[in-house]
Amino acid sequence: MAETGREGTTWTRKDLLGLEDLSREEILYILDAAEGFSEVSTRSIKKVPALRGKVIVNLFFEASTRTRISFELAGTRLSADVINFSGATSSAVKGETLNDTARNIEAMGVDILVVRHPCSGAALQISRLVSASVVNAGDGSHEHPTQALLDIFTIRRRLGRVEGLKVAIVGDVAHSRVARSNIWGLQKLGAEVYAVGPPTLVPRGLAKLGVKVSHHLDEVLHEVDVFNMLRIQTERQDEGLFPTIREYSRLFGLNRQRMRRVKPEALVLHPGPINRGVEIMPDVADGPQSVILNQVTNGLAVRMAVLYLVGTRPAASPAAAEGLA
Amino acid sequence: MAETGREGTTWTRKDLLGLEDLSREEILYILDAAEGFSEVSTRSIKKVPALRGKVIVNLFFEASTRTRISFELAGTRLSADVINFSGATSSAVKGETLNDTARNIEAMGVDILVVRHPCSGAALQISRLVSASVVNAGDGSHEHPTQALLDIFTIRRRLGRVEGLKVAIVGDVAHSRVARSNIWGLQKLGAEVYAVGPPTLVPRGLAKLGVKVSHHLDEVLHEVDVFNMLRIQTERQDEGLFPTIREYSRLFGLNRQRMRRVKPEALVLHPGPINRGVEIMPDVADGPQSVILNQVTNGLAVRMAVLYLVGTRPAASPAAAEGLA
Amino acid sequence: MAETGREGTTWTRKDLLGLEDLSREEILYILDAAEGFSEVSTRSIKKVPALRGKVIVNLFFEASTRTRISFELAGTRLSADVINFSGATSSAVKGETLNDTARNIEAMGVDILVVRHPCSGAALQISRLVSASVVNAGDGSHEHPTQALLDIFTIRRRLGRVEGLKVAIVGDVAHSRVARSNIWGLQKLGAEVYAVGPPTLVPRGLAKLGVKVSHHLDEVLHEVDVFNMLRIQTERQDEGLFPTIREYSRLFGLNRQRMRRVKPEALVLHPGPINRGVEIMPDVADGPQSVILNQVTNGLAVRMAVLYLVGTRPAASPAAAEGLA
Repeated sequence: MAETGREGTTWTRKDLLGLEDLSREEILYILDAAEGFSEVSTRSIKKVPALRGKVIVNLFFEASTRTRISFELAGTRLSADVINFSGATSSAVKGETLNDTARNIEAMGVDILVVRHPCSGAALQISRLVSASVVNAGDGSHEHPTQALLDIFTIRRRLGRVEGLKVAIVGDVAHSRVARSNIWGLQKLGAEVYAVGPPTLVPRGLAKLGVKVSHHLDEVLHEVDVFNMLRIQTERQDEGLFPTIREYSRLFGLNRQRMRRVKPEALVLHPGPINRGVEIMPDVADGPQSVILNQVTNGLAVRMAVLYLVGTRPAASPAAAEGLA
Repeated sequence: MAETGREGTTWTRKDLLGLEDLSREEILYILDAAEGFSEVSTRSIKKVPALRGKVIVNLFFEASTRTRISFELAGTRLSADVINFSGATSSAVKGETLNDTARNIEAMGVDILVVRHPCSGAALQISRLVSASVVNAGDGSHEHPTQALLDIFTIRRRLGRVEGLKVAIVGDVAHSRVARSNIWGLQKLGAEVYAVGPPTLVPRGLAKLGVKVSHHLDEVLHEVDVFNMLRIQTERQDEGLFPTIREYSRLFGLNRQRMRRVKPEALVLHPGPINRGVEIMPDVADGPQSVILNQVTNGLAVRMAVLYLVGTRPAASPAAAEGLA
Repeated sequence: MAETGREGTTWTRKDLLGLEDLSREEILYILDAAEGFSEVSTRSIKKVPALRGKVIVNLFFEASTRTRISFELAGTRLSADVINFSGATSSAVKGETLNDTARNIEAMGVDILVVRHPCSGAALQISRLVSASVVNAGDGSHEHPTQALLDIFTIRRRLGRVEGLKVAIVGDVAHSRVARSNIWGLQKLGAEVYAVGPPTLVPRGLAKLGVKVSHHLDEVLHEVDVFNMLRIQTERQDEGLFPTIREYSRLFGLNRQRMRRVKPEALVLHPGPINRGVEIMPDVADGPQSVILNQVTNGLAVRMAVLYLVGTRPAASPAAAEGLA
């Protein structure tokens, strides 16, 4: 049971900003907590009173309905009150600084800020300013830790372990916060990470993160245990980073032909939303090796775990810590 | 009591997609359940724990504040957690298919999806895909069943019956999902339905739905028990379907002069929002025969009943069914 | 204790539309109630069941995330169900009148409408139409009573009194609903109010409201106890009401140099969001005499008090009144 959180480990961090900062033990601690919460979602009454009377604000400066709903539901299942704040319709338009917005929201007695922002480092910046907990829900091309945690949680559940697995992240790894968080998390748990894509999106320099760089999906097909297919942003095409969607799909799309060559137990993940017919073909996305919808389901358990841990950490609330023990 | 749901009838459907599919008994069953819930709204504490721990998502791909708020309040009064998803700010903009959006939201453990969509058949399409319940809150020009149910509920409450009544639906019947659902529901309960409007909006062919087509409001004024005045869409004018608003109003608007010629107990309904001075004059909308605000109030009870029935149907949850008995 | 609400005073108003209408005793009654609620926000579980089962609708026809969130949190802490309605995405776009919108929402069984609207008098208009309580959250350039109440609450807490204080409102007093509500409230409680700004934004005629008009901030610096720095709207520059932002800031901005000349206990307030570097310099906004974040915190307590008082007034609900005694 090398991958289970050690006895005696506890969560003491105020924030979850990224997986780069976390130890292997902390990551396992979150995953184990998520196992407990995933059971809650199978009940008829899907609520526990863990965060009753606490306030969570979803502070989203980028549109993302799925992630917002996932956090909103996770908070609701913990009985917290969840308030949505969308940057587009906010006093952001009146030119208030990010810092002032964060300080103001905290002054209203908020316990946890879930922050999504187009700038790398935004969550960190806010976390230094406020005593409320900050959960990074995606900052620029930096990190998206809960996405990586749910990816890893899904892999561990399906394959029974993470250590020793070969995980290929396929697509625009260079610009992807999902890729970055996955690389940190997977490596800390002992997986071997491949970055696969055209040289413009997977430059050789990525090897300095400790990943195996490949520009040919077909070369690694047979040896990989998990394929995490990133969503391709069509904007990248305008920037000249790949010639055409059709060409990208031919070289790096996961299709039926390629699936015949992968290991029989290999898993297919995708952070969503899917571009059907581009990075993944419909029959693969809906096929038996796809765990894409499991990722969505597990995302709720992982986010419940994260909100619970930062919301009841001993430092913040001694009384709550007793409930944790 | 021919119009009350029979002893022993129970609700077994996963979804409410339209009134065309429902039997007379099922419609009466919903109306009777709504009678019970309409009492809840008169209490000081307007909540019952019927759907506690259940999650309802309002999945609206068309703006509609009133209908959204009505469903949100109905869910809240049943103690469900209600999440709003608006198509305009969603991953819909990232090009995700309707099917993927629905499957993803279901994977988060949602119990009921309330769907509004500009395409006819969207709610049906989703319902076939997900095991969660789907309530159609308006799909293209197809059906809007809860609106028709609240119209019929309001009529039954005021006039004591539906059978044998003459109900005129006045306006753009050809393009109206409200009209279509009313026609199915009213006919199943034994009412006689008139479709009244200019030939461009009420073509002769509508008679195949079993309605009496009239192009002259004044000809039917004296014999009708209920006038359901549809909102006229000014876009129809651009399409050349009627000459001017003023002309439409002169021929089909309900005004004081016309009200002098209707039966003394005739009711005036309107699904809202009202175009005052177009299809209905202010003194008629606010007059003693108008039940327009009662419709809004009753809409809550009807939607509580629908959410309750699909959310606790025996197949979905045997335990809940006991509470229903 | 001249400034505490008298024994035996009770709250009987259905609405809170402005401070002009209120007696000194009523204002003190709200402030005293807010003292009680401010304690709730310091608890680990920040909820009281005072408005359980009641429905509050935030009816906002102007974007204002902070005020909306503050009211949403205040309602939530009182255990009410809070529904957000934003004018921009509403049936307002379908041309429904304000009156019809309000009547419709009330027909859904709403207990309290919190109204923000760009037209002066909108909250009053709605309040006359509906039996639900109406709380004015800002109407045109007329009043914004809860903002003034939280300003006054903050002053009273910090300086121990309001009576006899000299309070300068600095900036675009002529067009400011915050200024107007503050003037009424402060004067009723015995403070002396200064209106300070260029003649285009603080015309001599303002003296008829009983305020001391000054066009030179430096002249009054030494004698004022409280500076309430209004946000300058850059649109005013386009209207030719002041030459440049830089010039305005030089003459009326609160900076370090000016702070050296104020009384040692003088307070700095700002209704937010702050234009850092315009009407207030960053080191003053974040300095020891600034109570700007306290205002935000106190806003929650004041809004809880207002929602509680209108939501449980004796006339509306005899049972609730017992809980008040």
